[in-house]
Amino acid sequence: MPQEIDILVSEVGPRDGLQSIKRIMDTQDKLNWIKALAASGIQEIEVGSFVSPRLLPQMADCAKLVSETNKIDNLMVLALVPNLKGAELAVAAGARKLTIPPSASHAHSIKNIGKTPAEAIEEVHRICKFRDNLPVKQRPDIEVGISTAFGCTLEGTVSEDWVIEMAGLLARAGADSIGLSDTTGYANPAQIKRMFRRLRSEIGDEKMGGAHLHNTRGQGLANVVAAIEVDVSTFDSSLGGLGGCPYAPGATGNIVTEDLVFMLEAMGLNTGIDLDALIASREVLLRGLPDEVLYGNVPEVGLPKGFTYAAKRNS
Amino acid sequence: MPQEIDILVSEVGPRDGLQSIKRIMDTQDKLNWIKALAASGIQEIEVGSFVSPRLLPQMADCAKLVSETNKIDNLMVLALVPNLKGAELAVAAGARKLTIPPSASHAHSIKNIGKTPAEAIEEVHRICKFRDNLPVKQRPDIEVGISTAFGCTLEGTVSEDWVIEMAGLLARAGADSIGLSDTTGYANPAQIKRMFRRLRSEIGDEKMGGAHLHNTRGQGLANVVAAIEVDVSTFDSSLGGLGGCPYAPGATGNIVTEDLVFMLEAMGLNTGIDLDALIASREVLLRGLPDEVLYGNVPEVGLPKGFTYAAKRNS
Repeated sequence: MPQEIDILVSEVGPRDGLQSIKRIMDTQDKLNWIKALAASGIQEIEVGSFVSPRLLPQMADCAKLVSETNKIDNLMVLALVPNLKGAELAVAAGARKLTIPPSASHAHSIKNIGKTPAEAIEEVHRICKFRDNLPVKQRPDIEVGISTAFGCTLEGTVSEDWVIEMAGLLARAGADSIGLSDTTGYANPAQIKRMFRRLRSEIGDEKMGGAHLHNTRGQGLANVVAAIEVDVSTFDSSLGGLGGCPYAPGATGNIVTEDLVFMLEAMGLNTGIDLDALIASREVLLRGLPDEVLYGNVPEVGLPKGFTYAAKRNS
Repeated sequence: MPQEIDILVSEVGPRDGLQSIKRIMDTQDKLNWIKALAASGIQEIEVGSFVSPRLLPQMADCAKLVSETNKIDNLMVLALVPNLKGAELAVAAGARKLTIPPSASHAHSIKNIGKTPAEAIEEVHRICKFRDNLPVKQRPDIEVGISTAFGCTLEGTVSEDWVIEMAGLLARAGADSIGLSDTTGYANPAQIKRMFRRLRSEIGDEKMGGAHLHNTRGQGLANVVAAIEVDVSTFDSSLGGLGGCPYAPGATGNIVTEDLVFMLEAMGLNTGIDLDALIASREVLLRGLPDEVLYGNVPEVGLPKGFTYAAKRNS
């Protein structure tokens, strides 16, 4: 049974991280890495993406990863699906939770998935209908993260009203949860607070998703603090800050899981994650991707003297 | 006349930044850099430290810097003074604002200035009496920043009750404002909110100082967001993240001015600073310190498409 936690840290390195890297990591190396992450206490991992292997050959082993990682205790395995075909493949592989990334920006949506935002919402609707027709035990949880929700490198400002309207449409299309993604590293803390407040009032507590943040302009953890102020409780991040969006020029790495977990625990928010084990899992990642550059301050500097985990402090 | 601003960004690079670097920057190069910073709209700069040139030869030109930079329009020139002797030298040089960094940690205080915290408070009292005996026009503003207020690399946890008690003692000793410094990069956002709230209730609005934050564990801007939540309105930072504390092992660089200003402006908080001019001042700094490593994400990645300054957005 999963440990009682305050904040869910959802690791996206094996998907968002690897997606931005040209090299292909061996399936066994990925499995070792995912196991190390889970062993450190991470309770949700996005293991890959059901996209065409022609587009992203790094993700070609996603079905195998889903079926293997489903065996890991206390781990929710997440798979990205861009469309109905991906969802079908994911379910066939045994995926219990899917994440879909429709984009609020028209230009980004066309470039990323070849569909307008309206068509992407319709595709989410199709995926939800497909789910509804499955036997109950096979029905996956469907999470949607609205990409470019805070701005777009192609279009600039993205209408906040439209993002919230889109969240409402996605909720009515049948998504179980809707979160907001700062795909491009454009978000600022004031905007984060405003948008997640509006999101909650649009779709309600039950469908509230998390924040997917990038650290492009150094604002990643600042945005987390802002999101916590308005009770967001799920954050995506990647070990070593690996990753980015290949279709958003200049958009570098996700927020760093190690620094995020340190911050949350230091704030007294239990993540269920052991920082030493988490930091040690960098070595497992590097065994599969030798010489890859990893980011993160806490792994460099270490924990403060006298550091106490939230669970210990609160008990 | 200074522009109406929401947040005062106090640049500490010429003091805290240079202090951690062995090379000595030419006085003229420092002046060029300070002028470039002021021209970008920065309204307060800590130009140096009146310490023994044997201890910190980089700071030997502080008197000259104070008298020269006092001539710059719309700039408050700040000088660090560790003791009464430093304060006397500073006032003789024409300093109008002094900053004193007594440490809450006993071990750090001894190592940094050779005094216990109680002796350091007594020294602040002596400096305030010295100020009170000056002709009115010569009296400098006295700011105190309590060092290691959030933890110490030597002692670990520092008693929060003691830090707040110390702030009260410093207020009664005659300091005009008292802020809190995360000298060691130990602070977390929850602690920042708690401590600045307590500080305000201890010393009152009138004596509320700012936050001096380091980015050692990547938490710098996250801590700024937390401080803004409790209405802190002055933040120290250094251009390119130059700097650190030579007596706190592992404590690297101040928060990066460029990323801080970007965040504040993006949040709709007017700093009065032009980001292009600020980023251009990195070149002026580098002319005086060739090949020095500078940090900062915004200078690397650039401003988001469609970025608008707070003053323009709010007008």
